[in-house]
Amino acid sequence: MQTFVCVWTEHLIPMTAIALDAMGGDNAPQAEVAGAIAAVDETQVRVILVGDKDRLHAELKSHGRSECEQIEIRHASEVVSMKDNPGKVFRQKTDSSMRIATDLVVSGEAGALVSAGNSGAMLSHCLFLLKRLPSVERPGIIQEFPRPTGIVTICDLGANTVVSPTMLAQFGILGAHYNRILHSQKRPRVGVLSNGTEDSKGTELTRDASELLRQAAGHVDAEFEFVGYVEGSDILADKVDVLATDGFTGNVVLKTMEGVSEAVMRMIKTAMGSTVRAKLGGLLARPALLAFRDSIHYSKFGGTMLLGINGTATICHGRSNAEAITNAILKTNRLLEKNLRQELGHAIARHAELWKSVKQ
Amino acid sequence: MQTFVCVWTEHLIPMTAIALDAMGGDNAPQAEVAGAIAAVDETQVRVILVGDKDRLHAELKSHGRSECEQIEIRHASEVVSMKDNPGKVFRQKTDSSMRIATDLVVSGEAGALVSAGNSGAMLSHCLFLLKRLPSVERPGIIQEFPRPTGIVTICDLGANTVVSPTMLAQFGILGAHYNRILHSQKRPRVGVLSNGTEDSKGTELTRDASELLRQAAGHVDAEFEFVGYVEGSDILADKVDVLATDGFTGNVVLKTMEGVSEAVMRMIKTAMGSTVRAKLGGLLARPALLAFRDSIHYSKFGGTMLLGINGTATICHGRSNAEAITNAILKTNRLLEKNLRQELGHAIARHAELWKSVKQ
Repeated sequence: MQTFVCVWTEHLIPMTAIALDAMGGDNAPQAEVAGAIAAVDETQVRVILVGDKDRLHAELKSHGRSECEQIEIRHASEVVSMKDNPGKVFRQKTDSSMRIATDLVVSGEAGALVSAGNSGAMLSHCLFLLKRLPSVERPGIIQEFPRPTGIVTICDLGANTVVSPTMLAQFGILGAHYNRILHSQKRPRVGVLSNGTEDSKGTELTRDASELLRQAAGHVDAEFEFVGYVEGSDILADKVDVLATDGFTGNVVLKTMEGVSEAVMRMIKTAMGSTVRAKLGGLLARPALLAFRDSIHYSKFGGTMLLGINGTATICHGRSNAEAITNAILKTNRLLEKNLRQELGHAIARHAELWKSVKQ
Repeated sequence: MQTFVCVWTEHLIPMTAIALDAMGGDNAPQAEVAGAIAAVDETQVRVILVGDKDRLHAELKSHGRSECEQIEIRHASEVVSMKDNPGKVFRQKTDSSMRIATDLVVSGEAGALVSAGNSGAMLSHCLFLLKRLPSVERPGIIQEFPRPTGIVTICDLGANTVVSPTMLAQFGILGAHYNRILHSQKRPRVGVLSNGTEDSKGTELTRDASELLRQAAGHVDAEFEFVGYVEGSDILADKVDVLATDGFTGNVVLKTMEGVSEAVMRMIKTAMGSTVRAKLGGLLARPALLAFRDSIHYSKFGGTMLLGINGTATICHGRSNAEAITNAILKTNRLLEKNLRQELGHAIARHAELWKSVKQ
């Protein structure tokens, strides 16, 4: 692995590069290049911009910048589009910016990759090229959500529509260690999303996954608690730190939360225009309301992570702006510094006997 | 069927009784009796209060009322508790208020039943005693949700955690006709909840159910449109009027919507206390915000309905107050007047060939 050494909070830490698929998002490459520049200006991070070298050079130039120790360009002649078939594209477009960025991680030249491109294609590139961590059945997508107190994460948010009990239990464990590492939660509370809190609720899948999580949480070195079933109304209620669910339900929940937040804010706006008094109140409260709306905007949270692969990969929203890209690079960098991949590897390997017992 | 005839919007309409399980809810029988009194005072409806006759007489008396043509008491010596096993209780407690109320509908003495008791037990009472409408595979629970423009309904919200394509398609059709009848939507737009709008998304279940709905919507007499897959973010976005989903996902969505609305409102309240200016704005906007909060409160929507049974049954929130009970009685009465059960029967029978084709 090619590394640069820089002085960092009193310790010597290798400055591992992050490969950025600079052509993937709806606003590429402008958002990607501007986001990378802001990231390197903010912290000691090294970014390899992957994509059409002429466009990337021109884009850097438009910011009065050029390649330097912290920003490098790597050419890729193709782009994975949102319409490309995720299962086929990594074989068809072998010179795409996403493919080259993934290859940089496989070869060790970069420590992680970030892309705002086709998320299904990101999943297949990571799965087939980076592969899974030992004993991990399938990787899951995780994201944090703000709640009145702190944050909660949900895994899986859409990588796997149909899952096994082992997969579901592993999503909970991967999520717990992600929260522990990134959000400094000492013993994250893991719950399985269900249609009721009683043990009789749920499906065969949620019951079996809960049993696995109960056993795993009983391990002497387990660094998480298992709180059992959690309902939709508990997601933002500070009863749980990590929610394990299948990718179908997780995706529906993710989008329901987005849609409901938006609808409630629209309805409150309408209510605030209903009387002269309310209108005046709305005007006065406007800056605070806008600050709140901004604080829960996806661009603040640095994208979703793919957990369980043998590497570090961040999947950004397709319509990411420069700020979202910057936050994704900074978060990915923190996870590299904190050895996310290795920590997740240990966390899953710790329960190897449990996973084997299911297969028998 | 024992009926009273009263003059009603210029037509002669039989005043069918509604059997009210007066002992079921957390606030029973106070909320139930007060709710029934308010309902009969508001409109021409007849309510049979089912439960401990001494307590019900005393409760009526505390309001300065007694039995009359519009309010009758029917004794039941037992009560189904929230802890009773739904699958067993209808055989074990044969003199429960829920059981007697259901029996009144079976015998035709009442046209519908309303209960705020154990919803699983309500489901089993209705399923085993009232049975299903012909060709209906399983009944589903439906509820309306306010969106910035109008309402949207979701079916199933928890009656069936694991469903078949036929069940899912029927939830969509039952929901469409419920919306048509109760909410005067001419051609409700039905969608299947999924993790993306592309046909490649979803599961085998959602794909097969979508195919059935597509075929049903093509029927010359179909009174609904099928819009395909719908995402969580579309639920409140006026893209769809009825959402078909399994009871596991539906229940998670229902509770996520409750939890997110609450969390967003709490966070907005905090934001409004963040500066002196915002605080003043919050004070001025307070009445409008409270009015908005009230407008989306469950008590306004008259409970959930069990669709697909050979009867009319309303399941109220366990913690229903008198207002929630009143609204449930009024809604149930409207559905009786509009022949919900018969209309749903026709709607499902219209596609009998389609349901048969799946079984072959």
